[in-house]
Amino acid sequence: MKQVLKGGIVVGGSGSFKADVLIDGEKVAAVGTGEEIGHLADKDTRVVDVEGCLLFPGFIDAHTHFDLHVAGTVTADDFATGTKAAVRGGTTTIVDFGTQYTGESLADGLRNWHERADGRCSCDYGFHMSISDWNPSVSRELDDMMEEGITSFKLYMTYDTQVDDKTIFEILRRLKEVGGITGVHCENSGMIAALQAEAKAAGRMGVESHPATRPAAAEAEAIDRLLRLAEVADIPVIVVHLTCREGCDVIMEARRRGQKVYAETCPQYLLMDDSLYGLTGMEGAKYVCAPPLRKPEDSQRLWRALADGTIQTVSTDHCSFTTAQKALGKDDFTKIPGGMPGVETRGTLLFTYGVDAGRITRERMCQLLSENPAKLYGMYPEKGVIAPGSDADIVVMRTGVEDTVTAADQVQNVDYAPFEGRKLTARIESVFLRGTQVVKDHQVVVEKAGRFVKRGKYAL
Amino acid sequence: MKQVLKGGIVVGGSGSFKADVLIDGEKVAAVGTGEEIGHLADKDTRVVDVEGCLLFPGFIDAHTHFDLHVAGTVTADDFATGTKAAVRGGTTTIVDFGTQYTGESLADGLRNWHERADGRCSCDYGFHMSISDWNPSVSRELDDMMEEGITSFKLYMTYDTQVDDKTIFEILRRLKEVGGITGVHCENSGMIAALQAEAKAAGRMGVESHPATRPAAAEAEAIDRLLRLAEVADIPVIVVHLTCREGCDVIMEARRRGQKVYAETCPQYLLMDDSLYGLTGMEGAKYVCAPPLRKPEDSQRLWRALADGTIQTVSTDHCSFTTAQKALGKDDFTKIPGGMPGVETRGTLLFTYGVDAGRITRERMCQLLSENPAKLYGMYPEKGVIAPGSDADIVVMRTGVEDTVTAADQVQNVDYAPFEGRKLTARIESVFLRGTQVVKDHQVVVEKAGRFVKRGKYAL
Amino acid sequence: MKQVLKGGIVVGGSGSFKADVLIDGEKVAAVGTGEEIGHLADKDTRVVDVEGCLLFPGFIDAHTHFDLHVAGTVTADDFATGTKAAVRGGTTTIVDFGTQYTGESLADGLRNWHERADGRCSCDYGFHMSISDWNPSVSRELDDMMEEGITSFKLYMTYDTQVDDKTIFEILRRLKEVGGITGVHCENSGMIAALQAEAKAAGRMGVESHPATRPAAAEAEAIDRLLRLAEVADIPVIVVHLTCREGCDVIMEARRRGQKVYAETCPQYLLMDDSLYGLTGMEGAKYVCAPPLRKPEDSQRLWRALADGTIQTVSTDHCSFTTAQKALGKDDFTKIPGGMPGVETRGTLLFTYGVDAGRITRERMCQLLSENPAKLYGMYPEKGVIAPGSDADIVVMRTGVEDTVTAADQVQNVDYAPFEGRKLTARIESVFLRGTQVVKDHQVVVEKAGRFVKRGKYAL
Amino acid sequence: MKQVLKGGIVVGGSGSFKADVLIDGEKVAAVGTGEEIGHLADKDTRVVDVEGCLLFPGFIDAHTHFDLHVAGTVTADDFATGTKAAVRGGTTTIVDFGTQYTGESLADGLRNWHERADGRCSCDYGFHMSISDWNPSVSRELDDMMEEGITSFKLYMTYDTQVDDKTIFEILRRLKEVGGITGVHCENSGMIAALQAEAKAAGRMGVESHPATRPAAAEAEAIDRLLRLAEVADIPVIVVHLTCREGCDVIMEARRRGQKVYAETCPQYLLMDDSLYGLTGMEGAKYVCAPPLRKPEDSQRLWRALADGTIQTVSTDHCSFTTAQKALGKDDFTKIPGGMPGVETRGTLLFTYGVDAGRITRERMCQLLSENPAKLYGMYPEKGVIAPGSDADIVVMRTGVEDTVTAADQVQNVDYAPFEGRKLTARIESVFLRGTQVVKDHQVVVEKAGRFVKRGKYAL
Repeated sequence: MKQVLKGGIVVGGSGSFKADVLIDGEKVAAVGTGEEIGHLADKDTRVVDVEGCLLFPGFIDAHTHFDLHVAGTVTADDFATGTKAAVRGGTTTIVDFGTQYTGESLADGLRNWHERADGRCSCDYGFHMSISDWNPSVSRELDDMMEEGITSFKLYMTYDTQVDDKTIFEILRRLKEVGGITGVHCENSGMIAALQAEAKAAGRMGVESHPATRPAAAEAEAIDRLLRLAEVADIPVIVVHLTCREGCDVIMEARRRGQKVYAETCPQYLLMDDSLYGLTGMEGAKYVCAPPLRKPEDSQRLWRALADGTIQTVSTDHCSFTTAQKALGKDDFTKIPGGMPGVETRGTLLFTYGVDAGRITRERMCQLLSENPAKLYGMYPEKGVIAPGSDADIVVMRTGVEDTVTAADQVQNVDYAPFEGRKLTARIESVFLRGTQVVKDHQVVVEKAGRFVKRGKYAL
Repeated sequence: MKQVLKGGIVVGGSGSFKADVLIDGEKVAAVGTGEEIGHLADKDTRVVDVEGCLLFPGFIDAHTHFDLHVAGTVTADDFATGTKAAVRGGTTTIVDFGTQYTGESLADGLRNWHERADGRCSCDYGFHMSISDWNPSVSRELDDMMEEGITSFKLYMTYDTQVDDKTIFEILRRLKEVGGITGVHCENSGMIAALQAEAKAAGRMGVESHPATRPAAAEAEAIDRLLRLAEVADIPVIVVHLTCREGCDVIMEARRRGQKVYAETCPQYLLMDDSLYGLTGMEGAKYVCAPPLRKPEDSQRLWRALADGTIQTVSTDHCSFTTAQKALGKDDFTKIPGGMPGVETRGTLLFTYGVDAGRITRERMCQLLSENPAKLYGMYPEKGVIAPGSDADIVVMRTGVEDTVTAADQVQNVDYAPFEGRKLTARIESVFLRGTQVVKDHQVVVEKAGRFVKRGKYAL
Repeated sequence: MKQVLKGGIVVGGSGSFKADVLIDGEKVAAVGTGEEIGHLADKDTRVVDVEGCLLFPGFIDAHTHFDLHVAGTVTADDFATGTKAAVRGGTTTIVDFGTQYTGESLADGLRNWHERADGRCSCDYGFHMSISDWNPSVSRELDDMMEEGITSFKLYMTYDTQVDDKTIFEILRRLKEVGGITGVHCENSGMIAALQAEAKAAGRMGVESHPATRPAAAEAEAIDRLLRLAEVADIPVIVVHLTCREGCDVIMEARRRGQKVYAETCPQYLLMDDSLYGLTGMEGAKYVCAPPLRKPEDSQRLWRALADGTIQTVSTDHCSFTTAQKALGKDDFTKIPGGMPGVETRGTLLFTYGVDAGRITRERMCQLLSENPAKLYGMYPEKGVIAPGSDADIVVMRTGVEDTVTAADQVQNVDYAPFEGRKLTARIESVFLRGTQVVKDHQVVVEKAGRFVKRGKYAL
Repeated sequence: MKQVLKGGIVVGGSGSFKADVLIDGEKVAAVGTGEEIGHLADKDTRVVDVEGCLLFPGFIDAHTHFDLHVAGTVTADDFATGTKAAVRGGTTTIVDFGTQYTGESLADGLRNWHERADGRCSCDYGFHMSISDWNPSVSRELDDMMEEGITSFKLYMTYDTQVDDKTIFEILRRLKEVGGITGVHCENSGMIAALQAEAKAAGRMGVESHPATRPAAAEAEAIDRLLRLAEVADIPVIVVHLTCREGCDVIMEARRRGQKVYAETCPQYLLMDDSLYGLTGMEGAKYVCAPPLRKPEDSQRLWRALADGTIQTVSTDHCSFTTAQKALGKDDFTKIPGGMPGVETRGTLLFTYGVDAGRITRERMCQLLSENPAKLYGMYPEKGVIAPGSDADIVVMRTGVEDTVTAADQVQNVDYAPFEGRKLTARIESVFLRGTQVVKDHQVVVEKAGRFVKRGKYAL
């Protein structure tokens, strides 16, 4: 079946055009002026009126944690609820973190994640693979992973999944051989552990100890370390969830030296700050994530870094827990499950507080949410762009609206909304997933249509 | 008339796609898969086979000096020969520097340049306006200029067209009001004058004194000064023909402070170095330009700056003189007319030594030569992109060829080629100017089809 | 006659020692333990009890403007009142700015300043020479100046004494030949002139326009320009009255490139900020000086720069005007005579808010006020140190006192004290000028004992 | 007994003076002009003619490894031979690294080192304590150490004595409490281990793999990490044996952020480069040390850093092995015992290639070798200065000589001299250790006169 999206503005990373989009089956067939595309429409062509709307390439969220067993509990969202929320928010592809736990092979990790996700996803999905138990056999498995379409990896410099510097270096060398890339959670685990021990010894067990024990210097240090390892290993790396000015400086300095470094941030670091940890009771626990929220000055710097190209992608680090789960840490801040939901509101928040606020252009937003993640994670040009031959993953965004974020409205499986009460000037009206309209009038109308994406090598 | 460019790869700043391009009159009407666009072709549609070629949006050269009276002579190329060479090299739009001389109004300058250019151009053309005699009346004229489509300006920090810091500041403030932008030639004139006087006093009159009296520090200083003026005036500026590492550092530091700065470089700074000034006789004079060629390390840094986004555009600073004209300075290096031809070879040089050499992607080349100058100089999306509704300015580039640069082949009016003997792996096979094929089999087949471009405000 | 200062702590740049000081005539003869020096004291030796006091080498103030005709008036302090205030504040040597005005020779300038100073000074004195009218004859005079002991110079990048970049460069080259050095007032005159014109055009004539029209960026720019000129001229320079963070950054960056740069600041930039310009009436005019007072963050940075060695000297830029004189600018901020008194309180302010406040050590204070200016201005080791053979210029400072700055107490010829009401924890009890006790019980007891100091080449 | 050193030039960190030095027993009693000091000399006073010589405060070497059991062997020099060589080279105080091995208490380590050193030393000596097994009991011992005069510590970020980031942080916090300071060997052990494994796997077992597996990036990374830990722990630290440009940059950046950081380098990094590792056979093994020798550009930067104050001290890292011992690594570069002798030639090398070569002043040399280590390691003003009340540790240096370094001449217990054949323009003629002349005519005439130095808190 053919469809025409008629009257919209096609947004791309380079520019935006008033043009009609012809979809043939799962693919975009042509983009043209209304007159020309009109010629192509026969009586079987479904015409969708998107007059005045922005058409973004389906958003990609390369940083989600669904159905993750962590901190003695399981994330509130599994792949079913998580991807449903994602697609409602305009995200047509997520890349979740498959994880190899101690003693497992990468194949084990991959199998486990396929089991959790397959058949349940309402948007397309892929996996990074988190490596936590490195050995020669795992090293050999990297070839298999690349072949399976698992072309990006994840390393932690903190947590119990943490790998040491020697391991990071060895993995970077192997990735260089196979053409893979890794994102890295950068925080100095030793500094944090020492600060946590100090806080506990002093009886400072509340939420406010969370940011106090994870200072920006711990993040900046780890970023520098990672970049030095990558410099010698001679391979680009991705700094995920960048939060602070010091981190931006470290990345800029590495680039001045000639290195290629990619950086990601998340809406929470752009729009909230660490004053929230001072809220009474367990209210502050809702915002516990790692790295923690920083100062308003950090958010300002991140916005600037989005605009000037220092940062390439905005993901969510969606890792949701209910307030009941958050309460597990009521006597000990280190027991608060870390993470927040985010997948449902990323696009509209970024449009409202980024594009409409004049901080970034809509084209830059397209790069940050669609084009760049597609390239960085090996899915371009199938994903990330509205162009002939690419997947017909299209977000129809209505602007100029007056919506409000509220937990009552959300489909993600969590009983609060971090951005509760925030105004939104944009609404995700419709979403097409490979040609199928899965969201209509801002409601998910087709579920579980998602398909696993076998990804290629990074190319950004 | 409709035309279809069939079988090519459409290159854009964000990505490239195998797609056919439907042209309707002067405009691109649609871009689509071969099947879809095939449906549109009726028997009147001209089908042009571009199988396997790259289709770039027509290149834009925002830095040419045609028919310029300078240093007691006139540039070898006027608008007729210059634009013919330009379009043969894939450049469908040039922006030349109209100049206000002392005592003139901007209107005078504009009129003079229209007289020189109108009716003679083989590609589309616009003008920047060089301001050298600032006063309240000229200030008022800026509104007229903007209305006439002269939306970018040029200031010199050296030469006799030079303006002082107070004037620069005042102009920047006015540009902020009217929405204009200025490119600036950044060199410290006082330092250069003192060094030239020293060289002359010491009898060092040869070509080698040219680079010795225009050190990189003179350029870096002037860039810093300009950026500080712009910081306080609160407006972006363009550093034209950036040549050196120190200059890159100054620009990066200003961006770290939060400023918006654009930078341009030219093929000569990427591909040649100051060892050429050591050639015997007046051979070195061929390469005299200002700022001068630098060290190989500077070129390397510039390539990196192209790749990582530090620099936004590559222009030519085409300002050609014959060897006879160059000989005017045989007894005094300060009398050598400064400048080189460049307009005919920019695209193929950049493809060969940039894209094919793995230094930049073809998408990045598209940004540097087409998309970014179109945006920066207020011509996007009419120019700078192959998309529905944009001008059908299209370069058909055949890659994988084995050509050689030689003066014997060139149409620009100068008796030497700075890049003589350089291998080229790409050839400009055809060029479409607003739908008219003006270059065929690498020869200009339609001349003087160029039209003045009334430009809008910068938006990059 | 011999004298022994008994029981004090001799402060030096490297360290401090409990030791007695034996003075023989105008010179220090020995420094030793009480026992040893006791052996040397015969019945003719005058013993001065300085038990518990700090003995600093006489302070040097290398930045004073006495008897200066400027802004249509004359500074309130001439050499008689100025040096009396200086020596009361522990300053045993001042270096004032002899000035060559347009049309004059340097010899003229020097003669004029000798006329103003000779026979009137209560402390030793030397002159820098301000060059404002550069030409070949003046260039030749530099040899004479060096011979006359005028070994340091002053250039202005703003004001009507301003010299352009070419002149600065030529002077730097000549100074390199003769072994001289220059201090430079760094502010971008063009930017300031444009901002002043804007302010006036908008009717913003009050004191608050003073800082608004002389932004830190204007200073940072001029510093960078000076340092680039000096980099190519290959000679160290002195940035006088450094005020701001941006300026510190520029200097640090030049040093990272490998340049030698000296920097001076003044108490007003360390201890006051631009909120004072918001005082009502002409109260704010008291604090008008150029560059203007900055933000508290700038002061903090300057303190750090004193402690870590970024800045080498603290002078006063004493240039006093009465409140009546300040009122000349009541309708036009550009007519307010710029400058403040400072010579009487520098030492005790720096001790109180620097040493006692834990920001710098007393040894560092000794470097900043005595040792470094002595070296930088060619007077070491005669001045700047208490050591065998050096001039017996000694400040006896009583610490732990509770004094207060007040105009009522001061001997400088001005009707207000910029630091009125500030607490002081140190008092200049006695001062020895080449062996003569000129201050006793904090009162000047011997006047006009000062002598002209023929200075040698800089050596810091 | 009293002695007078007559006719020399007393060198201090701030300045140098022609003055006689009166020694009374172990202490300096007075410094004065010849005339004055002459008055003090009675018939019992020994007069030592040092006419024309430089008198430096006894040099301090705060980085020696004598009698160290390491790499399966023992250093060639023990405290007897090592300190004899030291004092012959003008070093009157060494600070060696006492070491706590796994399972030991700090008290154990200290006892062991006292046993090795006590009664054998020909110069004064103190100990740092290397901490390698951190636990609560060791933490408590820090108070004892401070009381015992062990006020500085050593941490390794590589080797089997290495401590992890958490431990470093905890130690820094404890040092802040007790007022101690630590020097740190900064290299990223993980990166090195991975590179060594790569080299071995590839069969690259020769000396040239030593520098290849310890790149400058490994050092720069570790310095940054240390400085971030110290930033959060809020305490100054010492980067020992700094070798490279990248390291200098990291330190300068930390200072720009406001941190206090001290740095040390060694003659080998100033005067030799990594081309020596290319020497045939085991010749290159003589120069194996960690961090390894770097590029000539690094040496140049280090010299500049000495001159401009970026680096505070020059020590030797004396850790000598015979060529026979070096041969232990002939089949495996990781088995080459790392280290070089240095203690005998530091002063004359630094004078010849630093002071005489115009790179640093003699006053700066005095700071680097005497004054600064005395302050940084809590021995000032007893050590590090020639002033009333300080220890009469005095180096009498004859300049203008023409000596040559040769193993044949040396007293250190090793069969090669790393600087074999180098010209020296200065000779250590005499050395006074607390008033006793222990070196005469460049020969050690009194042995084992050294005494343990109970040190105070750092104060630089």
